[in-house]
Amino acid sequence: MKTRLLLLALFISANVFAQDLNNIKIPELIKESGRKTVNVPDILGYKTLKCDFHMHTVFSDGIVWPSFRVDEAWNNGLDVIAITDHIERHPGKTHVGGDDNSAYKIALPHAREKNIILIHAGEITRSMSPGHFNALFLEDTQALDKQDWHEAFDEAKKQGAYIIWNHPGWEAQQPDTTKWWEEHTQLYNEGMLHAIEVFNEQEWYPIALDWCMDKDLAPHAATDIHGIIAERYDLEKYNRPMTLVLAEERTEESVREALFANRTIAYFGKHLAGKEEYLKAFLEASVEVQFLNKTKKESRYLLKNTCDVPFQMQVKRGPAFTIPANGETIVALPKNTSSKFLVKNLYTKGTENLTVTLDLKK
Amino acid sequence: MKTRLLLLALFISANVFAQDLNNIKIPELIKESGRKTVNVPDILGYKTLKCDFHMHTVFSDGIVWPSFRVDEAWNNGLDVIAITDHIERHPGKTHVGGDDNSAYKIALPHAREKNIILIHAGEITRSMSPGHFNALFLEDTQALDKQDWHEAFDEAKKQGAYIIWNHPGWEAQQPDTTKWWEEHTQLYNEGMLHAIEVFNEQEWYPIALDWCMDKDLAPHAATDIHGIIAERYDLEKYNRPMTLVLAEERTEESVREALFANRTIAYFGKHLAGKEEYLKAFLEASVEVQFLNKTKKESRYLLKNTCDVPFQMQVKRGPAFTIPANGETIVALPKNTSSKFLVKNLYTKGTENLTVTLDLKK
Amino acid sequence: MKTRLLLLALFISANVFAQDLNNIKIPELIKESGRKTVNVPDILGYKTLKCDFHMHTVFSDGIVWPSFRVDEAWNNGLDVIAITDHIERHPGKTHVGGDDNSAYKIALPHAREKNIILIHAGEITRSMSPGHFNALFLEDTQALDKQDWHEAFDEAKKQGAYIIWNHPGWEAQQPDTTKWWEEHTQLYNEGMLHAIEVFNEQEWYPIALDWCMDKDLAPHAATDIHGIIAERYDLEKYNRPMTLVLAEERTEESVREALFANRTIAYFGKHLAGKEEYLKAFLEASVEVQFLNKTKKESRYLLKNTCDVPFQMQVKRGPAFTIPANGETIVALPKNTSSKFLVKNLYTKGTENLTVTLDLKK
Amino acid sequence: MKTRLLLLALFISANVFAQDLNNIKIPELIKESGRKTVNVPDILGYKTLKCDFHMHTVFSDGIVWPSFRVDEAWNNGLDVIAITDHIERHPGKTHVGGDDNSAYKIALPHAREKNIILIHAGEITRSMSPGHFNALFLEDTQALDKQDWHEAFDEAKKQGAYIIWNHPGWEAQQPDTTKWWEEHTQLYNEGMLHAIEVFNEQEWYPIALDWCMDKDLAPHAATDIHGIIAERYDLEKYNRPMTLVLAEERTEESVREALFANRTIAYFGKHLAGKEEYLKAFLEASVEVQFLNKTKKESRYLLKNTCDVPFQMQVKRGPAFTIPANGETIVALPKNTSSKFLVKNLYTKGTENLTVTLDLKK
Repeated sequence: MKTRLLLLALFISANVFAQDLNNIKIPELIKESGRKTVNVPDILGYKTLKCDFHMHTVFSDGIVWPSFRVDEAWNNGLDVIAITDHIERHPGKTHVGGDDNSAYKIALPHAREKNIILIHAGEITRSMSPGHFNALFLEDTQALDKQDWHEAFDEAKKQGAYIIWNHPGWEAQQPDTTKWWEEHTQLYNEGMLHAIEVFNEQEWYPIALDWCMDKDLAPHAATDIHGIIAERYDLEKYNRPMTLVLAEERTEESVREALFANRTIAYFGKHLAGKEEYLKAFLEASVEVQFLNKTKKESRYLLKNTCDVPFQMQVKRGPAFTIPANGETIVALPKNTSSKFLVKNLYTKGTENLTVTLDLKK
Repeated sequence: MKTRLLLLALFISANVFAQDLNNIKIPELIKESGRKTVNVPDILGYKTLKCDFHMHTVFSDGIVWPSFRVDEAWNNGLDVIAITDHIERHPGKTHVGGDDNSAYKIALPHAREKNIILIHAGEITRSMSPGHFNALFLEDTQALDKQDWHEAFDEAKKQGAYIIWNHPGWEAQQPDTTKWWEEHTQLYNEGMLHAIEVFNEQEWYPIALDWCMDKDLAPHAATDIHGIIAERYDLEKYNRPMTLVLAEERTEESVREALFANRTIAYFGKHLAGKEEYLKAFLEASVEVQFLNKTKKESRYLLKNTCDVPFQMQVKRGPAFTIPANGETIVALPKNTSSKFLVKNLYTKGTENLTVTLDLKK
Repeated sequence: MKTRLLLLALFISANVFAQDLNNIKIPELIKESGRKTVNVPDILGYKTLKCDFHMHTVFSDGIVWPSFRVDEAWNNGLDVIAITDHIERHPGKTHVGGDDNSAYKIALPHAREKNIILIHAGEITRSMSPGHFNALFLEDTQALDKQDWHEAFDEAKKQGAYIIWNHPGWEAQQPDTTKWWEEHTQLYNEGMLHAIEVFNEQEWYPIALDWCMDKDLAPHAATDIHGIIAERYDLEKYNRPMTLVLAEERTEESVREALFANRTIAYFGKHLAGKEEYLKAFLEASVEVQFLNKTKKESRYLLKNTCDVPFQMQVKRGPAFTIPANGETIVALPKNTSSKFLVKNLYTKGTENLTVTLDLKK
Repeated sequence: MKTRLLLLALFISANVFAQDLNNIKIPELIKESGRKTVNVPDILGYKTLKCDFHMHTVFSDGIVWPSFRVDEAWNNGLDVIAITDHIERHPGKTHVGGDDNSAYKIALPHAREKNIILIHAGEITRSMSPGHFNALFLEDTQALDKQDWHEAFDEAKKQGAYIIWNHPGWEAQQPDTTKWWEEHTQLYNEGMLHAIEVFNEQEWYPIALDWCMDKDLAPHAATDIHGIIAERYDLEKYNRPMTLVLAEERTEESVREALFANRTIAYFGKHLAGKEEYLKAFLEASVEVQFLNKTKKESRYLLKNTCDVPFQMQVKRGPAFTIPANGETIVALPKNTSSKFLVKNLYTKGTENLTVTLDLKK
């Protein structure tokens, strides 16, 4: 019995030693991996899906293989993506063949494995006007590769596409101002324009939000990533920019229905841009107010925020404070303060912020 | 005069407003970019070049375009890289054509623009034994694509290649132990083996350092990256793993001369592995000792480290302390402490640490 | 009208300019502040309160003012703290007067403002055996300042104190082993011992968890902070160590009831230590399992974790994987895998991990 | 022999096991500590000392013990500090006695141990005008505790003090504008004003730099810290704000000489403010230019920066680029570009940037 213990002991020690000489993992070099939850509330009875409908691969001017876009999206907590390689610039790279559907076909099996909804899409890439547009829910992206841009849009419409005007304020195409052209009216009137990127990569176009609200188009935010999300964005600070889609279910069909119904919020950095109704529901689902105590002069409240978006509150003619993301703050509000707050990082129009009423009991 | 001022003022304000509605940059979303200096000393009259001789692209089982490996290396502060796509598995991807030289040819102009030295190379990929090997300084990687591995090595030798045995302790090929096979003796005897990876990706093979020291082979450290460095490694904490090459100049010719002369140090995480002579010079060029004061019992010293590698010092039979990377520490050493220190993160053999003598005046 | 606009414009521009010359805030220097939510589930009908019952101030050998401990706790997301200055070493500092109740009295009004529950306490500080003990819920800490340690405990008991044995494995007091002394049996038998720190500062004492489970004592984790939490702990990676208390309500009275009823979990880094019942409920409240799809060989599941503690799962004789904190993972489990998992970072005894059964439908 | 090996093996394994049950360190919880080097060049034959001349302790309205300010300064890479508790508000805290010299006396032995130069000082704290002033190099701070502020200054002068006007643009004292009052002229004329904080905590007062340049006063930057540096400042991004002093040697006497000779640079975030001569020398000692190659249209240069301050360069009527801290950039400059650059983060006056000429050979 004793001998067996001794032998066991010898085995253990010897093994430790041998392993040391063979192969030692050094895990502290390695960045933690795994999918990070994007912490935003489900609202109004919908699931809030995290979507990026604009990105590129080696099949146009991007530098990654299509399946990587799925892995990246998974790591970043997204639910839905569309690979939108430039349709007219195919093939993008020396020695790369295939056609405008290749990126989608290559990425699809991997998307299924990773539980990511992959939308078949492409980017109609024209000089201004009309500029660049993503067409989603295509059957055959290749069929949009036409000489005349009108024909490309006709084909997209024929396939039932959802069409987004990309980066309307992009300096390369709109150097002096961000302008709505005659061609956009035309597309709009013909049912060939459903959404606008009010945010692209690192640019926010307030006037495009006004267009969305005036013309009942859906506001989007997209990365338009050509390189690597983890190199481009400071993910320690903010989620990658994305379009939040309020869908019945987490299915492609539900995403399509929600998009055509304009149920989107553009989410970029600490900002949200969208319909008052959605932003109000978003904030109310995220913030809890608790009365703490009061003096003759003021009442003190604990404000808790359970989502990734901080809220920069401004009492009308009163103090300003931030309810931090996934955190809390205590505020002292003077007696008779209005319970109406301007939320300075939530936009209902290009130059208008959401106003909310918090339930300040006592 | 006054009117002009007023008009100017109006122009300025109006302009500010207009810009707000058009296109607002949100720079806080974006990660800082630019090349980070890898802070290691030049030693023994040589320039210490930062090199990674093992990485993949879409031309084998990697997921990035060749030019991206150059950008990544530039950002990470490297001087020299080799793209080593698997020779026998070409073409790696659906719709990707080209041959075993394509990745090199595509990346070369970009490497020149970015001031990165790009070595023409490829990975001989065989089951164990002999396993995987990188061949550097090739003329024509395609010519190594042979049925019989002996012929691949013959061709490499004919082209004057520098040959590295990759990940000798890789579990997939050496599941039970890390072993030197008959085939390695054969390659070694025929001048077809010049170096061994003592570190690959996140694995350190101490026994391989013993082989290097016993047989006069050069120790290397490599990332073998298939994905993205910024996603794989925690670059906030450590530089990416690399081989330091002590070269006369920052030229490809100098790198070749230095490699064949075995002037390398494997650098991974906080660890260095290599010849005693090099590690000693490295530490001595990085650490400054300053006497502060003394009591009857002990003397106090300020130890300053000007490089990215911390030094974990252990006085024989005495206290242990760390001289932090790019930092300082104060230590109190008992009277009559030996001035000999074991440096526990610097390896001269698989199970031996560097011993240094610090100049503890007074 | 036009003139007024011009004047307004002038005013705005002039103002901008003037402000530039006066006082420009540079917010990017400043670290984000505000209370961070500690994300752990309420379980078994209780509120899971985040508590640290061990910390020091300038009123013993700490280096901060008592009110700062409240601010720090607030920032770190705690609900309850006790300031436990050493009773026998008072006053701690040159020019600092007061008595053993001073720290509590000074911090109390600030705790009320910050909505932090502050427990009146003190640390009985004796050489081993019996060592150091925190006494909580005191009326008069000063009254425990006795020559003989028996008298100090008697007084504590008289005041109805909850008594915790601190850092039982502290090397300074238990240099060779971590041992339960005769004196501890004595205290235990007289109802003067209710809990043990199984974790203190950065040390985990597995054997102390065995004592807790064997003798029905409550396991605690505490920082014992003398300096600054934000300097000592890497809060980017983990919450500060704490004792989770399962309380009926968020009140001092409820905390007292829960403590005397042993409803605690020690939480340190990625580890939890406590009763099987509590750990099981904790994990089950945090993890959602979703079946994705299956092949003939394996089934694939999405595992989502909604809390700050990662779970390191190990299938018995099967694969190991981690469900990341506030994140998700996908795992492929071979057909007929047991649905029993060992959770390697959750301890029910010093050397035993929690076993859980996940509901792997389909 | 064999038996001894077995016994040894048993001992080793048993020991490992025993230790596991006793006391296991969990180092990954702990933040890395040690002094971080502030990487700035020595210039013009002087040592560039890193100094913070404005901070508080429990002896006024700060919340830490004086010795902590030394530890904090040491960790942050400083060479010199002054503790400047408010003279008139002593004692600051319940139960804290002592006088205006106590903080200095308590911290001094610890400063010597940590190799930090501690300047005996105090803050003259008056309402505007004249406001707050730090007096450095005092013999007896207590003696400045006078009813009439004139007498406090007279006493300071008598003791040979170096006097700094603190936060001249502080909103609480200068709500509408940042203004130089009659009293400041008076102090200036009587040799009782030697320096001005152009930066305090997170505020930069450009107009105060103009006053420094016009009246030959030394510009300072100070933290005015009352709480904790590591909580207040984002030290991952920037060094704490500080005054750089160009001293003959690293001694108190040299610091005094350098201060009275106005050899200071205010350093805050990525900004430097000071005399053209010093900023020019600073940049030139930090930046290396290397010609890479050229085309007919442009020349390409590698710019390397060896210090912690990035340089935001702007070619007159040309491109803008940043040479990152401790990093490199490659820039392509059009043929015939001026070699004069505006450095937009280096201020020689409130609204003027440094202009430098880089040596763009070829």
